[in-house]
Amino acid sequence: MSDLKHITRADIDSMSKVPRLKLINSLPGFKSANLVGTSSKEGTENLAIFSSVMHLGSNPPLLGCILRPTTVPRHTYDNIRENDGCYTINHVNSDIYQQAHQTSGNYREDISEFESSGLTPWYSEGCPAPYVEESRIRIGLRLVEEHVVKANKTRLLVGAIEEVWVHEASIREDFTIDIEQAGSVAISGVDGYHTTKQIDQLDYVRIDEKLQRPGL
Amino acid sequence: MSDLKHITRADIDSMSKVPRLKLINSLPGFKSANLVGTSSKEGTENLAIFSSVMHLGSNPPLLGCILRPTTVPRHTYDNIRENDGCYTINHVNSDIYQQAHQTSGNYREDISEFESSGLTPWYSEGCPAPYVEESRIRIGLRLVEEHVVKANKTRLLVGAIEEVWVHEASIREDFTIDIEQAGSVAISGVDGYHTTKQIDQLDYVRIDEKLQRPGL
Repeated sequence: MSDLKHITRADIDSMSKVPRLKLINSLPGFKSANLVGTSSKEGTENLAIFSSVMHLGSNPPLLGCILRPTTVPRHTYDNIRENDGCYTINHVNSDIYQQAHQTSGNYREDISEFESSGLTPWYSEGCPAPYVEESRIRIGLRLVEEHVVKANKTRLLVGAIEEVWVHEASIREDFTIDIEQAGSVAISGVDGYHTTKQIDQLDYVRIDEKLQRPGL
Repeated sequence: MSDLKHITRADIDSMSKVPRLKLINSLPGFKSANLVGTSSKEGTENLAIFSSVMHLGSNPPLLGCILRPTTVPRHTYDNIRENDGCYTINHVNSDIYQQAHQTSGNYREDISEFESSGLTPWYSEGCPAPYVEESRIRIGLRLVEEHVVKANKTRLLVGAIEEVWVHEASIREDFTIDIEQAGSVAISGVDGYHTTKQIDQLDYVRIDEKLQRPGL
Protein backbone atom coordinates (compact mmCIF):
# COMPACT_ATOMS: atom_id res chain seq x y z
CA MET A 1 0.00 0.00 0.00
CA SER A 2 1.53 3.24 -1.18
CA ASP A 3 0.92 6.67 0.31
CA LEU A 4 -1.20 9.01 -1.76
CA LYS A 5 0.17 12.28 -3.08
CA HIS A 6 -2.40 15.07 -3.39
CA ILE A 7 -1.91 17.58 -6.20
CA THR A 8 -4.37 20.46 -6.21
CA ARG A 9 -5.33 22.74 -9.08
CA ALA A 10 -3.31 25.49 -7.36
CA ASP A 11 -0.25 23.20 -7.37
CA ILE A 12 -0.74 22.54 -11.10
CA ASP A 13 -1.17 26.24 -11.91
CA SER A 14 2.05 27.11 -10.06
CA MET A 15 4.17 24.48 -11.84
CA SER A 16 6.57 25.45 -14.62
CA LYS A 17 5.69 24.45 -18.17
CA VAL A 18 7.64 21.20 -18.66
CA PRO A 19 6.72 19.41 -15.41
CA ARG A 20 3.10 20.48 -15.91
CA LEU A 21 3.10 19.11 -19.48
CA LYS A 22 4.57 15.82 -18.25
CA LEU A 23 2.10 15.48 -15.39
CA ILE A 24 -1.07 16.34 -17.31
CA ASN A 25 -0.10 14.27 -20.36
CA SER A 26 0.27 11.23 -18.06
CA LEU A 27 -3.25 11.55 -16.67
CA PRO A 28 -5.54 10.18 -19.40
CA GLY A 29 -3.77 6.80 -19.43
CA PHE A 30 -2.40 4.99 -22.49
CA LYS A 31 -2.86 6.69 -25.86
CA SER A 32 -2.90 5.51 -29.45
CA ALA A 33 0.10 6.22 -31.70
CA ASN A 34 -0.75 7.21 -35.25
CA LEU A 35 0.83 9.03 -38.17
CA VAL A 36 -1.48 11.42 -39.99
CA GLY A 37 -0.60 11.78 -43.68
CA THR A 38 -1.67 14.77 -45.78
CA SER A 39 -0.56 16.66 -48.86
CA SER A 40 -0.77 20.34 -49.81
CA LYS A 41 -2.41 21.56 -53.01
CA GLU A 42 1.12 21.83 -54.47
CA GLY A 43 1.65 18.15 -53.64
CA THR A 44 4.08 18.54 -50.72
CA GLU A 45 3.56 15.56 -48.44
CA ASN A 46 3.26 16.00 -44.69
CA LEU A 47 3.38 13.41 -41.93
CA ALA A 48 2.80 14.06 -38.22
CA ILE A 49 2.53 11.83 -35.16
CA PHE A 50 -0.69 12.09 -33.15
CA SER A 51 -1.52 10.50 -29.80
CA SER A 52 -5.12 11.71 -29.81
CA VAL A 53 -6.90 9.56 -32.42
CA MET A 54 -10.13 8.19 -30.90
CA HIS A 55 -13.20 6.13 -31.78
CA LEU A 56 -16.35 8.23 -32.23
CA GLY A 57 -18.78 5.76 -33.72
CA SER A 58 -19.19 2.71 -35.93
CA ASN A 59 -22.30 3.56 -37.97
CA PRO A 60 -21.37 5.80 -39.68
CA PRO A 61 -17.71 4.87 -39.09
CA LEU A 62 -16.06 7.91 -37.47
CA LEU A 63 -12.68 8.64 -35.91
CA GLY A 64 -11.74 11.84 -34.11
CA CYS A 65 -8.42 13.51 -33.49
CA ILE A 66 -7.34 16.56 -31.52
CA LEU A 67 -5.26 19.33 -33.09
CA ARG A 68 -3.39 21.83 -31.01
CA PRO A 69 -4.32 25.52 -31.47
CA THR A 70 -3.92 26.73 -35.05
CA THR A 71 -2.42 30.04 -33.94
CA VAL A 72 0.99 28.69 -34.98
CA PRO A 73 1.27 27.08 -38.45
CA ARG A 74 -0.22 23.61 -38.58
CA HIS A 75 0.57 22.00 -41.90
CA THR A 76 -1.64 19.01 -41.23
CA TYR A 77 -4.73 21.14 -40.73
CA ASP A 78 -4.04 23.41 -43.72
CA ASN A 79 -3.44 20.41 -45.98
CA ILE A 80 -6.66 18.68 -44.95
CA ARG A 81 -8.63 21.81 -45.74
CA GLU A 82 -6.85 22.29 -49.09
CA ASN A 83 -7.20 18.66 -50.19
CA ASP A 84 -10.98 18.10 -50.12
CA GLY A 85 -10.82 17.09 -46.46
CA CYS A 86 -8.73 13.99 -47.19
CA TYR A 87 -6.17 12.54 -44.79
CA THR A 88 -4.82 9.18 -43.70
CA ILE A 89 -4.29 7.61 -40.27
CA ASN A 90 -1.52 4.99 -40.04
CA HIS A 91 -0.77 2.90 -36.94
CA VAL A 92 2.73 3.31 -35.51
CA ASN A 93 4.30 -0.09 -34.82
CA SER A 94 7.37 -1.07 -32.85
CA ASP A 95 9.56 -1.20 -36.00
CA ILE A 96 8.96 2.46 -36.88
CA TYR A 97 8.25 4.30 -33.63
CA GLN A 98 11.58 6.14 -33.67
CA GLN A 99 11.03 7.40 -37.21
CA ALA A 100 7.44 8.25 -36.34
CA HIS A 101 8.59 10.29 -33.32
CA GLN A 102 10.93 12.32 -35.56
CA THR A 103 7.90 13.76 -37.36
CA SER A 104 7.09 15.76 -34.22
CA GLY A 105 9.94 18.15 -35.07
CA ASN A 106 8.85 21.52 -36.41
CA TYR A 107 9.97 21.34 -40.06
CA ARG A 108 9.49 24.05 -42.67
CA GLU A 109 6.37 23.79 -44.83
CA ASP A 110 8.31 22.70 -47.93
CA ILE A 111 10.10 19.86 -46.10
CA SER A 112 8.41 16.45 -46.25
CA GLU A 113 8.53 14.51 -42.99
CA PHE A 114 8.51 11.36 -45.11
CA GLU A 115 11.93 12.36 -46.40
CA SER A 116 13.33 13.51 -43.05
CA SER A 117 12.03 10.43 -41.19
CA GLY A 118 12.82 7.84 -43.87
CA LEU A 119 9.24 6.52 -43.99
CA THR A 120 7.74 5.65 -47.39
CA PRO A 121 4.69 7.35 -48.93
CA TRP A 122 2.15 4.90 -50.40
CA TYR A 123 -0.96 5.77 -52.39
CA SER A 124 -4.25 4.06 -53.15
CA GLU A 125 -6.67 5.06 -55.88
CA GLY A 126 -9.33 5.84 -53.31
CA CYS A 127 -7.47 8.57 -51.46
CA PRO A 128 -5.36 11.55 -52.57
CA ALA A 129 -3.43 11.79 -49.27
CA PRO A 130 -0.31 9.67 -48.65
CA TYR A 131 -0.36 6.54 -46.50
CA VAL A 132 2.71 5.10 -44.73
CA GLU A 133 3.90 1.90 -46.40
CA GLU A 134 5.60 0.64 -43.21
CA SER A 135 2.31 0.81 -41.30
CA ARG A 136 0.22 -2.38 -41.14
CA ILE A 137 -3.09 -0.62 -40.46
CA ARG A 138 -3.90 2.34 -42.74
CA ILE A 139 -7.15 4.29 -42.80
CA GLY A 140 -8.34 6.82 -45.38
CA LEU A 141 -10.68 9.52 -44.05
CA ARG A 142 -12.57 12.62 -45.08
CA LEU A 143 -13.20 15.49 -42.67
CA VAL A 144 -16.90 15.86 -41.91
CA GLU A 145 -16.97 18.40 -39.07
CA GLU A 146 -14.81 20.19 -36.54
CA HIS A 147 -15.32 21.63 -33.07
CA VAL A 148 -13.15 24.24 -31.35
CA VAL A 149 -12.71 23.74 -27.60
CA LYS A 150 -13.30 27.24 -26.21
CA ALA A 151 -11.17 26.70 -23.11
CA ASN A 152 -7.90 26.38 -25.05
CA LYS A 153 -8.63 26.59 -28.79
CA THR A 154 -7.73 22.95 -29.48
CA ARG A 155 -9.80 21.47 -32.28
CA LEU A 156 -11.64 18.15 -32.56
CA LEU A 157 -11.58 16.92 -36.16
CA VAL A 158 -14.29 14.39 -36.99
CA GLY A 159 -13.40 12.16 -39.95
CA ALA A 160 -15.54 9.61 -41.80
CA ILE A 161 -13.70 6.42 -42.74
CA GLU A 162 -13.61 5.93 -46.52
CA GLU A 163 -11.36 2.86 -46.71
CA VAL A 164 -9.10 0.63 -44.62
CA TRP A 165 -5.94 -1.24 -45.64
CA VAL A 166 -4.84 -3.88 -43.18
CA HIS A 167 -2.30 -6.70 -43.26
CA GLU A 168 -4.24 -9.95 -43.79
CA ALA A 169 -2.32 -11.52 -40.91
CA SER A 170 -3.72 -8.96 -38.45
CA ILE A 171 -7.45 -9.32 -39.05
CA ARG A 172 -9.46 -12.05 -37.32
CA GLU A 173 -12.49 -13.90 -38.66
CA ASP A 174 -14.87 -11.81 -36.52
CA PHE A 175 -13.38 -8.62 -38.08
CA THR A 176 -11.51 -7.59 -34.94
CA ILE A 177 -8.09 -6.31 -35.94
CA ASP A 178 -5.44 -7.80 -33.66
CA ILE A 179 -3.55 -4.56 -33.14
CA GLU A 180 -1.11 -6.26 -30.77
CA GLN A 181 -0.19 -8.82 -33.45
CA ALA A 182 0.22 -5.89 -35.87
CA GLY A 183 2.83 -4.44 -33.51
CA SER A 184 0.89 -1.24 -32.79
CA VAL A 185 2.40 0.66 -29.85
CA ALA A 186 0.82 2.68 -27.05
CA ILE A 187 2.05 6.07 -25.79
CA SER A 188 2.29 7.27 -22.19
CA GLY A 189 2.81 10.89 -21.22
CA VAL A 190 4.64 12.93 -23.85
CA ASP A 191 7.38 10.51 -24.84
CA GLY A 192 6.91 6.96 -23.52
CA TYR A 193 6.46 4.17 -26.09
CA HIS A 194 5.10 0.77 -25.03
CA THR A 195 4.43 -2.63 -26.53
CA THR A 196 1.56 -4.61 -25.06
CA LYS A 197 0.60 -8.05 -23.84
CA GLN A 198 -3.06 -9.04 -23.98
CA ILE A 199 -4.25 -10.28 -20.59
CA ASP A 200 -7.90 -10.90 -21.41
CA GLN A 201 -10.76 -10.50 -23.81
CA LEU A 202 -14.02 -10.04 -21.96
CA ASP A 203 -17.56 -10.67 -23.04
CA TYR A 204 -20.34 -8.17 -23.36
CA VAL A 205 -21.83 -7.81 -19.87
CA ARG A 206 -25.38 -9.14 -19.57
CA ILE A 207 -27.32 -8.32 -16.43
CA ASP A 208 -29.52 -10.80 -14.56
CA GLU A 209 -32.79 -8.84 -14.71
CA LYS A 210 -34.06 -10.04 -11.34
CA LEU A 211 -30.87 -9.67 -9.36
CA GLN A 212 -29.46 -6.74 -11.37
CA ARG A 213 -26.14 -8.48 -11.11
CA PRO A 214 -23.86 -9.66 -13.88
CA GLY A 215 -25.05 -12.98 -15.32
CA LEU A 216 -23.20 -15.39 -17.56
CA MET B 1 5.43 -9.33 -45.72
CA SER B 2 1.71 -9.85 -45.44
CA ASP B 3 -0.90 -9.30 -48.16
CA LEU B 4 -3.09 -6.25 -47.70
CA LYS B 5 -6.83 -6.55 -47.23
CA HIS B 6 -8.82 -3.64 -48.65
CA ILE B 7 -12.05 -2.73 -46.87
CA THR B 8 -14.11 -0.01 -48.54
CA ARG B 9 -16.76 2.22 -47.03
CA ALA B 10 -19.35 0.18 -48.97
CA ASP B 11 -18.02 -3.00 -47.30
CA ILE B 12 -18.31 -1.35 -43.87
CA ASP B 13 -21.84 -0.11 -44.53
CA SER B 14 -22.96 -3.59 -45.59
CA MET B 15 -21.56 -5.35 -42.49
CA SER B 16 -23.85 -6.46 -39.69
CA LYS B 17 -23.68 -4.59 -36.40
CA VAL B 18 -21.32 -6.72 -34.29
CA PRO B 19 -18.53 -7.26 -36.85
CA ARG B 20 -18.72 -3.57 -37.77
CA LEU B 21 -18.44 -2.55 -34.11
CA LYS B 22 -15.43 -4.84 -33.66
CA LEU B 23 -13.69 -3.58 -36.78
CA ILE B 24 -14.21 0.14 -36.25
CA ASN B 25 -13.38 -0.02 -32.53
CA SER B 26 -10.03 -1.63 -33.45
CA LEU B 27 -9.02 1.20 -35.78
CA PRO B 28 -7.94 4.06 -33.51
CA GLY B 29 -5.27 1.91 -31.80
CA PHE B 30 -4.80 1.42 -28.05
CA LYS B 31 -7.18 3.26 -25.74
CA SER B 32 -7.08 4.35 -22.13
CA ALA B 33 -9.12 2.45 -19.54
CA ASN B 34 -10.80 4.63 -16.93
CA LEU B 35 -13.70 4.45 -14.50
CA VAL B 36 -15.83 7.59 -14.33
CA GLY B 37 -17.40 8.11 -10.90
CA THR B 38 -20.48 10.28 -10.35
CA SER B 39 -23.36 10.62 -7.93
CA SER B 40 -26.96 11.70 -8.41
CA LYS B 41 -28.58 14.50 -6.42
CA GLU B 42 -30.14 11.79 -4.21
CA GLY B 43 -26.63 10.46 -3.53
CA THR B 44 -26.80 7.25 -5.62
CA GLU B 45 -23.28 6.48 -6.78
CA ASN B 46 -22.57 5.53 -10.38
CA LEU B 47 -19.45 4.07 -11.93
CA ALA B 48 -18.87 3.42 -15.64
CA ILE B 49 -15.89 2.27 -17.69
CA PHE B 50 -14.74 4.60 -20.48
CA SER B 51 -12.14 3.95 -23.16
CA SER B 52 -12.32 7.49 -24.56
CA VAL B 53 -10.58 9.70 -21.97
CA MET B 54 -8.09 11.97 -23.75
CA HIS B 55 -5.64 14.80 -23.10
CA LEU B 56 -6.89 18.19 -24.31
CA GLY B 57 -4.38 20.59 -22.78
CA SER B 58 -2.08 21.26 -19.86
CA ASN B 59 -2.62 24.97 -19.20
CA PRO B 60 -5.41 25.04 -18.19
CA PRO B 61 -5.34 21.30 -17.37
CA LEU B 62 -8.14 19.69 -19.40
CA LEU B 63 -9.24 16.13 -20.12
CA GLY B 64 -11.93 15.13 -22.59
CA CYS B 65 -14.16 12.10 -22.80
CA ILE B 66 -16.72 10.89 -25.32
CA LEU B 67 -20.25 9.94 -24.29
CA ARG B 68 -22.49 7.86 -26.50
CA PRO B 69 -25.79 9.45 -27.59
CA THR B 70 -28.03 10.47 -24.72
CA THR B 71 -31.15 9.19 -26.44
CA VAL B 72 -31.05 6.19 -24.09
CA PRO B 73 -30.61 6.88 -20.36
CA ARG B 74 -27.04 7.81 -19.49
CA HIS B 75 -26.67 7.98 -15.72
CA THR B 76 -23.14 9.34 -15.89
CA TYR B 77 -24.19 12.36 -17.93
CA ASP B 78 -27.28 13.09 -15.84
CA ASN B 79 -25.30 12.85 -12.61
CA ILE B 80 -22.57 15.21 -13.82
CA ARG B 81 -25.20 17.79 -14.75
CA GLU B 82 -27.01 17.37 -11.42
CA ASN B 83 -23.89 17.51 -9.28
CA ASP B 84 -22.38 20.90 -10.19
CA GLY B 85 -20.46 19.34 -13.09
CA CYS B 86 -18.32 17.19 -10.77
CA TYR B 87 -16.99 13.76 -11.72
CA THR B 88 -13.92 11.62 -11.17
CA ILE B 89 -11.66 9.70 -13.54
CA ASN B 90 -9.88 6.65 -12.08
CA HIS B 91 -7.28 4.55 -13.93
CA VAL B 92 -8.16 0.89 -14.36
CA ASN B 93 -5.23 -1.32 -13.37
CA SER B 94 -4.56 -5.00 -13.96
CA ASP B 95 -5.88 -5.94 -10.48
CA ILE B 96 -9.34 -4.52 -11.12
CA TYR B 97 -9.96 -4.72 -14.88
CA GLN B 98 -12.55 -7.49 -14.55
CA GLN B 99 -14.55 -5.58 -11.95
CA ALA B 100 -14.17 -2.42 -14.04
CA HIS B 101 -15.52 -4.20 -17.11
CA GLN B 102 -18.64 -5.28 -15.16
CA THR B 103 -19.68 -1.64 -14.89
CA SER B 104 -20.47 -1.66 -18.62
CA GLY B 105 -23.64 -3.63 -17.89
CA ASN B 106 -26.85 -1.66 -18.14
CA TYR B 107 -27.95 -1.45 -14.48
CA ARG B 108 -31.07 0.29 -13.20
CA GLU B 109 -30.63 3.89 -12.07
CA ASP B 110 -30.98 3.00 -8.38
CA ILE B 111 -28.30 0.30 -8.55
CA SER B 112 -24.75 1.40 -7.72
CA GLU B 113 -22.08 -0.15 -9.93
CA PHE B 114 -19.75 0.12 -6.93
CA GLU B 115 -21.93 -2.47 -5.19
CA SER B 116 -22.40 -4.73 -8.19
CA SER B 117 -18.71 -4.67 -9.15
CA GLY B 118 -17.24 -4.86 -5.64
CA LEU B 119 -15.15 -1.71 -6.07
CA THR B 120 -14.89 0.72 -3.15
CA PRO B 121 -16.10 4.34 -3.19
CA TRP B 122 -13.58 6.82 -1.74
CA TYR B 123 -14.16 10.52 -1.11
CA SER B 124 -11.94 13.57 -0.76
CA GLU B 125 -13.00 16.92 0.69
CA GLY B 126 -12.34 18.60 -2.64
CA CYS B 127 -14.82 16.64 -4.73
CA PRO B 128 -18.45 15.55 -4.17
CA ALA B 129 -18.21 12.66 -6.68
CA PRO B 130 -16.91 9.23 -5.64
CA TYR B 131 -13.39 8.05 -6.50
CA VAL B 132 -12.36 4.38 -6.75
CA GLU B 133 -10.17 3.35 -3.81
CA GLU B 134 -8.56 0.49 -5.76
CA SER B 135 -7.34 2.91 -8.46
CA ARG B 136 -3.80 4.29 -8.07
CA ILE B 137 -4.39 7.39 -10.20
CA ARG B 138 -7.56 9.38 -9.42
CA ILE B 139 -8.54 12.70 -10.93
CA GLY B 140 -11.30 15.09 -9.82
CA LEU B 141 -12.84 17.22 -12.57
CA ARG B 142 -15.51 19.79 -13.26
CA LEU B 143 -17.33 20.00 -16.58
CA VAL B 144 -16.50 23.24 -18.41
CA GLU B 145 -18.04 22.69 -21.85
CA GLU B 146 -19.57 20.09 -24.15
CA HIS B 147 -19.80 19.60 -27.89
CA VAL B 148 -22.28 17.40 -29.72
CA VAL B 149 -20.90 15.62 -32.81
CA LYS B 150 -23.61 16.21 -35.40
CA ALA B 151 -22.78 13.09 -37.41
CA ASN B 152 -23.88 10.68 -34.68
CA LYS B 153 -24.91 12.68 -31.57
CA THR B 154 -21.96 11.53 -29.46
CA ARG B 155 -20.85 14.18 -27.00
CA LEU B 156 -17.37 15.47 -26.13
CA LEU B 157 -17.25 16.46 -22.45
CA VAL B 158 -14.44 18.86 -21.58
CA GLY B 159 -13.43 18.73 -17.92
CA ALA B 160 -11.03 20.95 -15.98
CA ILE B 161 -8.81 19.08 -13.52
CA GLU B 162 -9.45 20.21 -9.96
CA GLU B 163 -7.23 17.74 -8.09
CA VAL B 164 -5.16 14.59 -8.57
CA TRP B 165 -4.54 11.73 -6.13
CA VAL B 166 -1.68 9.43 -7.11
CA HIS B 167 0.26 6.67 -5.35
CA GLU B 168 3.61 8.16 -4.29
CA ALA B 169 5.38 5.15 -5.80
CA SER B 170 4.04 5.98 -9.29
CA ILE B 171 5.17 9.60 -9.64
CA ARG B 172 8.69 10.46 -10.82
CA GLU B 173 10.80 13.45 -9.82
CA ASP B 174 10.06 15.22 -13.12
CA PHE B 175 6.31 14.85 -12.38
CA THR B 176 5.74 12.21 -15.06
CA ILE B 177 3.41 9.57 -13.67
CA ASP B 178 4.72 6.11 -14.45
CA ILE B 179 1.39 4.66 -15.53
CA GLU B 180 2.98 1.33 -16.38
CA GLN B 181 4.38 1.01 -12.85
CA ALA B 182 0.90 1.94 -11.59
CA GLY B 183 -0.46 -1.08 -13.47
CA SER B 184 -2.73 0.96 -15.75
CA VAL B 185 -4.07 -1.16 -18.62
CA ALA B 186 -4.76 -0.35 -22.27
CA ILE B 187 -7.86 -1.41 -24.23
CA SER B 188 -8.04 -2.67 -27.81
CA GLY B 189 -11.24 -2.96 -29.78
CA VAL B 190 -14.34 -3.41 -27.63
CA ASP B 191 -13.07 -5.95 -25.14
CA GLY B 192 -9.29 -6.55 -25.23
CA TYR B 193 -7.31 -5.69 -22.08
CA HIS B 194 -3.52 -5.31 -22.22
CA THR B 195 -0.63 -4.70 -19.88
CA THR B 196 2.37 -2.84 -21.33
CA LYS B 197 6.14 -2.92 -21.49
CA GLN B 198 7.96 0.37 -22.05
CA ILE B 199 10.35 0.11 -25.00
CA ASP B 200 11.64 3.67 -25.06
CA GLN B 201 11.34 7.21 -23.81
CA LEU B 202 12.26 9.66 -26.55
CA ASP B 203 13.44 13.24 -26.31
CA TYR B 204 11.73 16.30 -27.65
CA VAL B 205 12.75 16.53 -31.33
CA ARG B 206 14.96 19.53 -32.10
CA ILE B 207 15.61 20.37 -35.74
CA ASP B 208 19.00 21.39 -37.11
CA GLU B 209 17.95 24.78 -38.54
CA LYS B 210 20.37 24.65 -41.47
CA LEU B 211 19.75 21.05 -42.55
CA GLN B 212 16.11 20.87 -41.41
CA ARG B 213 16.94 17.44 -40.13
CA PRO B 214 16.66 16.07 -36.61
CA GLY B 215 19.63 17.20 -34.48
CA LEU B 216 20.74 15.89 -31.10
